[in-house]
Order: sequence, then structure tokens, then C-alpha cells
Amino acid sequence: MANSSKKIKEIGEDLLIKRITKGLPLGEDVVAGAGDDCAVITNNDSQSYLLLKIDCVIEGIHYMKLTPPSAVGYKALSRAISDIAAMGGTPKHAMISLSLRPECNVSYVNSLYHGLLKASSPYNISIVGGETASCGKNGTPSVTVSLTGEVRKDHCCFRSQGKSENALFVTGKLGKSLNGHHLRFTPRIEEAQWLTKKFKPTAMMDLSDGLASDLPRLAKSSNCGYSIETKTIPRTRGASIKEALCDGEDYELLFAISSKNCKNLETAWLKKFPSLALTRIGKLSPKGTANPDLKGGWKHF
Amino acid sequence: MANSSKKIKEIGEDLLIKRITKGLPLGEDVVAGAGDDCAVITNNDSQSYLLLKIDCVIEGIHYMKLTPPSAVGYKALSRAISDIAAMGGTPKHAMISLSLRPECNVSYVNSLYHGLLKASSPYNISIVGGETASCGKNGTPSVTVSLTGEVRKDHCCFRSQGKSENALFVTGKLGKSLNGHHLRFTPRIEEAQWLTKKFKPTAMMDLSDGLASDLPRLAKSSNCGYSIETKTIPRTRGASIKEALCDGEDYELLFAISSKNCKNLETAWLKKFPSLALTRIGKLSPKGTANPDLKGGWKHF
Repeated sequence: MANSSKKIKEIGEDLLIKRITKGLPLGEDVVAGAGDDCAVITNNDSQSYLLLKIDCVIEGIHYMKLTPPSAVGYKALSRAISDIAAMGGTPKHAMISLSLRPECNVSYVNSLYHGLLKASSPYNISIVGGETASCGKNGTPSVTVSLTGEVRKDHCCFRSQGKSENALFVTGKLGKSLNGHHLRFTPRIEEAQWLTKKFKPTAMMDLSDGLASDLPRLAKSSNCGYSIETKTIPRTRGASIKEALCDGEDYELLFAISSKNCKNLETAWLKKFPSLALTRIGKLSPKGTANPDLKGGWKHF
Repeated sequence: MANSSKKIKEIGEDLLIKRITKGLPLGEDVVAGAGDDCAVITNNDSQSYLLLKIDCVIEGIHYMKLTPPSAVGYKALSRAISDIAAMGGTPKHAMISLSLRPECNVSYVNSLYHGLLKASSPYNISIVGGETASCGKNGTPSVTVSLTGEVRKDHCCFRSQGKSENALFVTGKLGKSLNGHHLRFTPRIEEAQWLTKKFKPTAMMDLSDGLASDLPRLAKSSNCGYSIETKTIPRTRGASIKEALCDGEDYELLFAISSKNCKNLETAWLKKFPSLALTRIGKLSPKGTANPDLKGGWKHF
């Protein structure tokens, strides 16, 4: 392949994932593979889909050596829960792979598990397996979570079914997550389930890499463009527009919905979730149109 | 807790996992959580269990910087397949989390995926998701695999149902895996499915940390002791008894079976799998007895 001699930092995560997952053989039971927030598996005997997610956090990248281990555990699992939310699902079973230095204290691991339990308990997630491996004395510790979920087939929400002229909404406020939100956020499980049940968004995802990276992904998945008013974007106190667009780690929901449902949605939302902002930021547009062209967002490499 | 100030290398993986998984709340659908080769989830609508596994390989520990990336991918997925085999199951859906240096070449990732595909294709496993994250310029790369499987409820084989006087068998030959076997082994899916269907082992596991570590785990799970003749252990050419017991990474099956079925098993095995050794190495014994007391096996920390 022409680009094989390039470094992965030169081609970026999206293109890398696209290249390596293109042509992977998928069984007939795979409704969605790589490219959505979760993989979606069907089972003819069941009215629900099985959702599958894997995600890791790495010391020095997603958390620091001095981050309290309970916060590391909470974040590691909550990120995966947020992806289950993005499909409208219910998280079910988690497995945890810890890669740690041999010098690590047992108390660190205990605290990390306290954080995992803090994240799992509101949803009655069962932590059904764990393994620990040594990353070596000078290695880089990490926590990888695999999480299953389930969702009623008629409530499952993909990234790919958005239509031009659908309204775009985001929950909460964006930007400056590194001030603390990235360690303490609440995955939007309840909100997403309510949305998929009552208003059937045509496309939905969670915002992990920043609206500027994630909105183009949703639009592309739906074969659309997008048109947003960047000054309407809901911002965390003190965040600039650029920070709201590009900081990442918001873990809020971005979704598209038929524009004729907007008023009803806004009224019902205010009643159901009075303390969580819901903001209409623009709309999906025909493929090839994008105004403004967003730059930035979190780059993995 | 009394041992919290200890380092994890001082208490070892088994005790660490036992401590952190003790008291984790498990839903009613969890048949087996941490402590067996896979987690086992039941679903009342189905005649099968869902099996879940997570496993990682780390550069410098499970493979080297110069190990061909296709071999790294093959090993990473095959290890998890071996755990599905240990339950008598069929592997179904894999997700891959890659942690890589930004300087890594795209060709490395392509080759790694070729190795994953080489491992998945004999079993029609669907690779349904992937993520890549940066471990940082000086970080430690790793590959984490999460794998689902399924097994008919009446064919599922745990570690915990072995009985005193059950005969103990191992497949293949043990020891000196680092000469190459650890990168090229064939998970014993076919053999395990045949065994669970035809002979219902009372307990089974795959040998990843060496018989000296793994047999005591199986015996303990079954609330038994064990009695083996170390000189009968099938050895890879050139391997000493100690190497066969302790090297690890054999990825063969260890199982217990009612002693009255031994002759039938040995005859049927020879006919079905003429090129793979099956060796009776001893038996399970009453709890508290263990002769010889095995020392060694792979230590994770």
C-alpha cells in the first residue's frame, strides 16, 4: 500500500482505523463493526442487540502519574459507558485489563477498583473479569476496559442515519474538560435512553475528541455535511469558542433529529432534565457542504 | 487492608486478583466472574452462554521490539482464543485496542492486523472494533484483545467441578515455548469442543503460566489437591522437567475427567487427533494433599 512507510502520526487515527478495518471479514450477525461508538451484534432469538466496546486510558496521555487512582478507574470505565450511552444502550458487563509497574502499591490498585466501582454501581454493571500484567519497571501503565451493553433493536441509535436538514443538538457545556470534568463526568445513559425512546434521534455519538473532530465524523457517517453557528455552542464557564470546539473529553451527546421535533424535544427536555443544558447548534446539510470547516479537536497521534 | 502498603510484585497476581475481585457485585446473569478462563454470562432466552475474555500482550514482556508484528497480532488474539477453548466454547467477536508510539510505521500496524486475521480466520471470528491510542514517544506499546464466545450451556466446562480421583490429562508437549511456540501455537478449540461434547471433562483450563502454576489453580478451584508424576509430563524436545513445568506459554489444555472414562478417551483421541499427544499425568486428590508441591511457573510480577 502506498502509505505503508508513513508513520501513524502522519496519517492520524481516523485514516489508520479506516485502513486497517477496511476489508475485515464480518459475520452476518454483525450489524455495525468498527466506525460507530460501539460494535452492534444481532441475535435472532432476542429483541435486543449486544453492544461491545473496548477502550483504554494510558498514563501520561489520559491521566497523569499523580492523578488519584480512584479517578483513573472512574474515568476508564465511564468513557466506555459513555459509548454505550451513545447507542441508546444499557451497560452490562465489564472486564478490566491493568498494565502496571511491579513497584506499584497494592493500595493503588485498591483505589483504582474503588473508582471502577463508583462508575459501575449506578448502572449495576457487573465487573466479571480482570487481569493484571506487568508493563515493566520503566513501562507505561494503562487501564483497558471492555464493556458489553444491550439495547432494544428499535431503540438502537447509530451515527449513520442522519439526514440533511436534521437539527443538531449537544447536551451540557463544552470545553476546558482538563480542569477536572474529564475525571468526574457523568455518562449520559439516562438522557440517551430517554431520547432514543421518546424522540428517536437519527444519529448520535458521544463527544470524546471535541466537537470539531466529532461532528465531521457523525456527518460523514451519515453521508451529510453540516452547518453550525460556532458562537451558539454551549461553553463551560471561561472556555473560549476554540476550547469548546477542540479541547475534547466532554463526554456529552451530539445528536441529529428531525427539525419538526425540535420544539417538542426542547419543551420535554427542560421538564425532564432541568439542570442539564440542551442546545441546538445547527443542522446537517447536503454532502460536501460544511460551514464553517472545523479545524482542530483532539488528535490521538 | 493489612497488605495495602505492599507492592504488587510482593503479593503476586493470584492474590492481587483475588483481593480486588472479592466482593465485586455481580448480576444474577453472571454464572462465573473473575477466576475462570472466561467470564460466563447466562441469558434465559438462549441455550448458550455468552463467554467474555480480555487479555493483553506488552512489548518487552510478551513480545520483543523486534518480534515480527504479524506474530504479535497472531499471538495476541490466539491467547484469548485459547481461553475460549478452555471453556469448550466457540470464539465469535474480537475487539482490538492498540497502544503504539507515534513514530510507529503504518506498515507495522498493517502487519499486526495480518497476524490478527491469521488467528481469526480459521474460526470465522469477526473483528468488530478497534481503537488505537498513543502510548507516547517513550511509552510501552501493547495490544489488548477482548473476545466474546459462545458455548452450549450443557457443554460449558469450568475449572471448578473437578473431583478427587479424577484423572488429569494434558494435550501436546510442554516447555521451551520461547523457542517459537509462543508465537505460533494453535489454540485447542477443536480438541476442547470434541472433549466437552464426547467426554465432559469435570474441569479444564488452558496452560498459559506453566503447569506448576496452573495445575494448583485448577485444583484449588475444584477444592481438591493433586498428585502427579512429574517424570511423565510430556516434554518438548530438549526441555527439562523443570522447563516443562515452569516455562509457561504452552497454550495446551489441562483437564480432569472421571477415571473410568480414561481408556475410552485415550482410544478415541488417538483416532481423532493422531498427531497431537494426550498424556495422563496424574490425578486430583483430596483437598490439602499435593505431591509433589510444584514450585515455579510464570510470575506476572
